[in-house]
Amino acid sequence: MPTDTKGADLLHSLAQTTTSRRTFLRTASLSAVGAGALVACNKASGEAPVQGATTARSSATAAGATGGTMGAHDTSHNAVAPSPAAQADAMDAMHEKGIKAFPARTEGKGNQLLQPRIEKGVKVYDLTAKVVPWEVEPGRRVEAWTYNGVVPAPQIRVREGDRVRVVLRNELPESTAIHFHGLELPNDQDGVPFITQPPVKPGQTYTYEFTVPNAGSHMYHSHHNSAKQVGLGLLGAFIVEPKRPAAIEKVDVDHVMILNDGAHGYTFNGKSFPATEPIVARLGQKLRIRYMNEGMMIHPMHLHGMHQTVIAKDGWMQPAPWKCDTLNIAPGERWDVVVNCTNPGTWAFHCHILPHAESDHGMFGMVTALVVEK
Amino acid sequence: MPTDTKGADLLHSLAQTTTSRRTFLRTASLSAVGAGALVACNKASGEAPVQGATTARSSATAAGATGGTMGAHDTSHNAVAPSPAAQADAMDAMHEKGIKAFPARTEGKGNQLLQPRIEKGVKVYDLTAKVVPWEVEPGRRVEAWTYNGVVPAPQIRVREGDRVRVVLRNELPESTAIHFHGLELPNDQDGVPFITQPPVKPGQTYTYEFTVPNAGSHMYHSHHNSAKQVGLGLLGAFIVEPKRPAAIEKVDVDHVMILNDGAHGYTFNGKSFPATEPIVARLGQKLRIRYMNEGMMIHPMHLHGMHQTVIAKDGWMQPAPWKCDTLNIAPGERWDVVVNCTNPGTWAFHCHILPHAESDHGMFGMVTALVVEK
Amino acid sequence: MPTDTKGADLLHSLAQTTTSRRTFLRTASLSAVGAGALVACNKASGEAPVQGATTARSSATAAGATGGTMGAHDTSHNAVAPSPAAQADAMDAMHEKGIKAFPARTEGKGNQLLQPRIEKGVKVYDLTAKVVPWEVEPGRRVEAWTYNGVVPAPQIRVREGDRVRVVLRNELPESTAIHFHGLELPNDQDGVPFITQPPVKPGQTYTYEFTVPNAGSHMYHSHHNSAKQVGLGLLGAFIVEPKRPAAIEKVDVDHVMILNDGAHGYTFNGKSFPATEPIVARLGQKLRIRYMNEGMMIHPMHLHGMHQTVIAKDGWMQPAPWKCDTLNIAPGERWDVVVNCTNPGTWAFHCHILPHAESDHGMFGMVTALVVEK
Repeated sequence: MPTDTKGADLLHSLAQTTTSRRTFLRTASLSAVGAGALVACNKASGEAPVQGATTARSSATAAGATGGTMGAHDTSHNAVAPSPAAQADAMDAMHEKGIKAFPARTEGKGNQLLQPRIEKGVKVYDLTAKVVPWEVEPGRRVEAWTYNGVVPAPQIRVREGDRVRVVLRNELPESTAIHFHGLELPNDQDGVPFITQPPVKPGQTYTYEFTVPNAGSHMYHSHHNSAKQVGLGLLGAFIVEPKRPAAIEKVDVDHVMILNDGAHGYTFNGKSFPATEPIVARLGQKLRIRYMNEGMMIHPMHLHGMHQTVIAKDGWMQPAPWKCDTLNIAPGERWDVVVNCTNPGTWAFHCHILPHAESDHGMFGMVTALVVEK
Repeated sequence: MPTDTKGADLLHSLAQTTTSRRTFLRTASLSAVGAGALVACNKASGEAPVQGATTARSSATAAGATGGTMGAHDTSHNAVAPSPAAQADAMDAMHEKGIKAFPARTEGKGNQLLQPRIEKGVKVYDLTAKVVPWEVEPGRRVEAWTYNGVVPAPQIRVREGDRVRVVLRNELPESTAIHFHGLELPNDQDGVPFITQPPVKPGQTYTYEFTVPNAGSHMYHSHHNSAKQVGLGLLGAFIVEPKRPAAIEKVDVDHVMILNDGAHGYTFNGKSFPATEPIVARLGQKLRIRYMNEGMMIHPMHLHGMHQTVIAKDGWMQPAPWKCDTLNIAPGERWDVVVNCTNPGTWAFHCHILPHAESDHGMFGMVTALVVEK
Repeated sequence: MPTDTKGADLLHSLAQTTTSRRTFLRTASLSAVGAGALVACNKASGEAPVQGATTARSSATAAGATGGTMGAHDTSHNAVAPSPAAQADAMDAMHEKGIKAFPARTEGKGNQLLQPRIEKGVKVYDLTAKVVPWEVEPGRRVEAWTYNGVVPAPQIRVREGDRVRVVLRNELPESTAIHFHGLELPNDQDGVPFITQPPVKPGQTYTYEFTVPNAGSHMYHSHHNSAKQVGLGLLGAFIVEPKRPAAIEKVDVDHVMILNDGAHGYTFNGKSFPATEPIVARLGQKLRIRYMNEGMMIHPMHLHGMHQTVIAKDGWMQPAPWKCDTLNIAPGERWDVVVNCTNPGTWAFHCHILPHAESDHGMFGMVTALVVEK
């Protein structure tokens, strides 16, 4: 199944090498993100394309003409600017720094495919619930309650009808249990302590086993003291591929995007901007995004440059696909969309509750980019 | 029209009789909820079915093997456990207590069908707005502003085309008025003081009369100082049955579920878990849930074990039914869903904004269960 | 293209002339809002239609007996009313005052159509970003960051395929940029500093130019320090009329309704009730409402008296129209609905998160009215 890891790595290495302007220009041509950033760099340093150039000139004039409010203000970066302009430059520098740092390296990467052991035709997944430090963005480490030491948990991806065994070992200081959110399982596999099973005590191991009943984008997470345990990271994607996928589901890039807003702040797949993972596709490719909200708030996800075609809700196909550019994802919901990557460039992609995505220090939290490479 | 009252009462009496483990076992066989709880009891006390048994054994071993972090840990409830395990047990005991108390008896039950007086073919409903104490959960009594002393108000259920008279007597310390939310009434029956009528002063009686224009799941509530008056309980369901119901509307159980989050806390039909009312259906039955949000926040309602088929919004049929397991209900909205009860057992059913449903003291607020009886 | 400005102005002048009861009665017959208000006045003063009469007589008696504010108040239930009745009257007086003041005059009106300069077939729009005082409701002035001095910004309305140039002059103390939210533009016109362009510094002028790619109800707003800049007013409607409108889009009244909840409080088109603009249509007309949420919170918009038929999301037609009376609008979303104005009168129209619309001092914030004139 296709993934965007390679693209993201390329992108990552690119970003890491853009320490000097020269290196940047040399590497930029390899990737649309480079190209995208390049445009900004050019303009910022005054070497702008035709349209920008006019701008720069007229703005210089404009600045000269402003008088009072602005004082004699040279818009180039090298000028000694009066206080308001200097403040604007200082703010812009913070904004630029964040964007240039994207995608920033951090320790730990969640939501990676978990390969099962096969025992007599059963796919066996071992999950250890444990507390680890987690780097949400460069230098910010938090306490995370995890499955196998990552946030989100490793991605489980199976097929409709598979026999699956999940072996949960609890190394947390609290009891826990796993609910397979969206799967229509036999009651005793539903993972709700005192209703369908006993709590799994610290030190205990508990086994779930079932035949996967329904396809779609589902989740697994703690259902014990869950406001705390899910908030701290005990959550992951449980993807069930259908036996007979619909034509619209045949995509080139398949991206799972788990939204959270708990103790770790505003995150996509356990990371905050600039440490969020960009989505990379080539021009003309079809991208599927599987939104999952594991938080406590809604997050209307706005993609720039291209619309999103909504195909499924909670793993169930919609009666007819419909289009939007901003899709509101509520806690516990999953929405699947397809994006036809027809518009090249680096596109901002963020929650449109603006305080979840930007402050006067720049972009943060629920921001990433869709990079459509030529 | 079918209701789930009988089932709920059975369930209730069951829960009330489970004071001793022996009594519990004796009565449990009568009901799936008993059976569901039984499974948990069994496992909790180590008498688990095959799969759980392995678990228990391995976990015992695991506990023994953990050393440092856990110490020698006996997983049975009666052991003197080292501090982390003891803390886990203490937390679990609180969680278990809440679930075993469900459905807990409280004084007062809202949303019960109100039988009209018939005067010359007109269905007459007498509503008295008054302040009463209201027991939201065992032992927690709040001040409620009510119609006829209950929260939610008595359920009004009529047919499209019926002639209806609502006689409102105001015994509140404030003026008030009734808005029939969702009904397309003549302007002077719309219930908005100073726009369509004068306020109904304390001590006054005011009469609304109209022919019911449109079918669906509607509401009635105060439209005067409403943030306070609705928040305190002046709200109820106004169901209009269609002259020609669609095939998909022919169900076995019809359940109205009013969500609120005001001064009384997080409630379903005026009660907080464990005092919420379970929904009971038999295997193979069709259940209709009429969600109504009278609060100030969204509540994404997540049903375990079976999907929900969305058929209507605000009383209007959707162009095509669509499926989900988590349905986001916003203030003022009504959503009708149908659940095919194909999966036996006791299923958690809650708002998926987890802090509305669980704390480290256990489940509370917006939690109930769907019981599918074999 | 039809607009409701004329109607609103008529309505406005009406409200302004209702200084005396006699003038009010004389002018009221010209407009349904007069009639609407009249009903309330009549009832309040006892001249009520048949049905209200019973009620109103008692209240009229009461009114007659009150003297001053309340005095000895006979509620027709023979009680000498204590202070609670006086308190109720005092509260009602505040509520009445707000509604009688509607629509209240304030300085400044946003969202008015901006006529472009035509240069060689290009529609050129000049926008100056600047800080101005803004009157949100009578007497409440706030600091607003605006395009051309108004909140929302002037409405840009073009046709699919038009060539458009937007010349932004920045007179703010901060850098800024314009994102055309919903338009699928070439990457370098997307308006995100450091990703697609440099920030536009104070004193600078920057030019955007593009061919309008996709029809629908879109927006333009700042995408730099946006949580602050959009919150303070740098936002407006960017409507793109389709080359081939669908039959359902052919309406008599086309109303844009921008919701906001930032530093200026709860507003529709930059104003809070009673300074919000009523929507006026004649009986039988078709009304289109283009909801746009530029805030940080959801706003479920509830129209009284008539349902809303949802036709488009974010400028894209829905696969099939669907009906509701309360439509939840999330930040960044646009929803287009059509209302068949079949029910005459003055209809409350508000956000159903009640604390956004009413307090014990009366209606405020996100409240307006749809006036269907006979």
